[in-house]
Amino acid sequence: MHLRRLLPGSLSGAYLIEYGNPSGYLPLREHLAVLLDEIGITAVPSQIVLTHGASQALDLVIRHLLAPGDAALVDDPGYYNLFGNLRLSNVQMLGVPRNPDGPDIDSLERLAAEHRPKVYFTQSVMQNPTGTDMSPHVSFKVLQIAERYGFYVVEDDIFGDLQVKTTPRLAALDQLRRVIYVRSFSKTLSGSLRVGLVACSHQLANDFAEIKMLTSITSSQVTERLIYLMLVDGHYRKYLGRLQQRLDDARQCGQSVRANRPRIVCRTPGRNVPMGAVPTCRGLHGLGRARLGRRLYARPGQYIPSPFGALAVDAF
Amino acid sequence: MHLRRLLPGSLSGAYLIEYGNPSGYLPLREHLAVLLDEIGITAVPSQIVLTHGASQALDLVIRHLLAPGDAALVDDPGYYNLFGNLRLSNVQMLGVPRNPDGPDIDSLERLAAEHRPKVYFTQSVMQNPTGTDMSPHVSFKVLQIAERYGFYVVEDDIFGDLQVKTTPRLAALDQLRRVIYVRSFSKTLSGSLRVGLVACSHQLANDFAEIKMLTSITSSQVTERLIYLMLVDGHYRKYLGRLQQRLDDARQCGQSVRANRPRIVCRTPGRNVPMGAVPTCRGLHGLGRARLGRRLYARPGQYIPSPFGALAVDAF
Repeated sequence: MHLRRLLPGSLSGAYLIEYGNPSGYLPLREHLAVLLDEIGITAVPSQIVLTHGASQALDLVIRHLLAPGDAALVDDPGYYNLFGNLRLSNVQMLGVPRNPDGPDIDSLERLAAEHRPKVYFTQSVMQNPTGTDMSPHVSFKVLQIAERYGFYVVEDDIFGDLQVKTTPRLAALDQLRRVIYVRSFSKTLSGSLRVGLVACSHQLANDFAEIKMLTSITSSQVTERLIYLMLVDGHYRKYLGRLQQRLDDARQCGQSVRANRPRIVCRTPGRNVPMGAVPTCRGLHGLGRARLGRRLYARPGQYIPSPFGALAVDAF
Repeated sequence: MHLRRLLPGSLSGAYLIEYGNPSGYLPLREHLAVLLDEIGITAVPSQIVLTHGASQALDLVIRHLLAPGDAALVDDPGYYNLFGNLRLSNVQMLGVPRNPDGPDIDSLERLAAEHRPKVYFTQSVMQNPTGTDMSPHVSFKVLQIAERYGFYVVEDDIFGDLQVKTTPRLAALDQLRRVIYVRSFSKTLSGSLRVGLVACSHQLANDFAEIKMLTSITSSQVTERLIYLMLVDGHYRKYLGRLQQRLDDARQCGQSVRANRPRIVCRTPGRNVPMGAVPTCRGLHGLGRARLGRRLYARPGQYIPSPFGALAVDAF
């Protein structure tokens, strides 16, 4: 069957037999510039590179900024797949303990002074796996330390669209000078389309587009157009509102469960990891399965990845 | 607009909010195993990993098999984007001069003995940019040398579907022992969907799927399903037949032009690069623009990438 017959008219066109722009579909980048502006991040479309999900964005950062043997700061506990990629790239990982209001600032400064890392990978909103947000005063200190020790901060904001009360992003405070902002639509629209983005300085955006071209030519304009059509439609905001409401209900449910239970106890000596939610609540568990994946939550017997090996959760 | 309303019923499903299998959409891999069998390559679906175009397949090979400083053999002249990726990865490139019947065997053996490369990247069918096919006796010698010096052969078969009279692939002779077979649908179905594949030994397929997961999670199941629906439809073979006929007409036209002109003269001293076709023929030029890209052809003033710098074409 010809592609024209498989796709709706709005997705047909000569572009189907072409590779497209290495930075990605321009109308989507233009629309994303507007969305970023709404959360206080000023970026023109040429500062935005579309990627094959947030993972390719993180991968481009690793390939461009980190050589084998270099050191990088990561949240501890943090995102297991990022740890896997850093290990693959022979990057030395420095775990910054995560407090309920963000990274532990004293540890961050000590590690930065000792190891002179080139990059700090973090999530300021709904951090995976703790579910915590970074407080504005902590964000400010993170950026001060980044300035002092000269490292980039990669803000992985893949859960940003799910946040009910918006907190300031690192990229909004810094305006993409030291911050490299990463996002995707896998958590809200479709994980199967594989559309993400990186927003950063002009120089870095050019570098990332070049590495993207050398390693994957372009991202798929078909899936980028699908995301674009979904975003510009008036129903998207309503849909996001409903999703946020469900998540907030589940969070409150989770908090009421947690209030009646002790903190999570981990088998690794000396480690008590406060988690954002627990999956014993029916609504929360259902939501986790349907939309978020279960990785946000810890349960007894579960292993939480950390750069220093898995933490085993014994009990709540 | 919801994704369900944008896509036809045959592409709807719960999979849209999931990430899918790191090796790619299973029904497509099953169908590809049948297509590979038709050109004499025996592979079960678990030996096939779907990729974001052939470029990601080449990238996975580079990341897994080549460390910075390692040596790799490449066709000279050859595919400029591969050279760019190898340079990015700090791999030492060893150019094997390309004759009309494939690589120069004496040079290949000498370079293999001197530098002990880990991989040889080549195109056996319609090589880019010379347009030449590898003769079976040359393929046999390439595999003998690979065995003797212990390197992998990466067969980039992206133009394979356009070949009118099928010649034996390296992978068919070797049955995926030392050969890693790469292919895509960008030249026949759509460059914008970004669907490619790598077929290889079970061990390598597992390794590639793991690196793919760490660096990009999965490939897009939406685009893989689109390719699948186009491939299983009975019209695909007819379409390919028409495409091959147009290409053959253009090739004959190009050959008649070439017969009346001298060989290409390049500015780099001592280099005369025989090209497969020249773009002065109306039909051929049109086809190049519409389907193949112009890179297959050389014209006066054009630069042909080579691992030793661009060759400038002065005249035909």
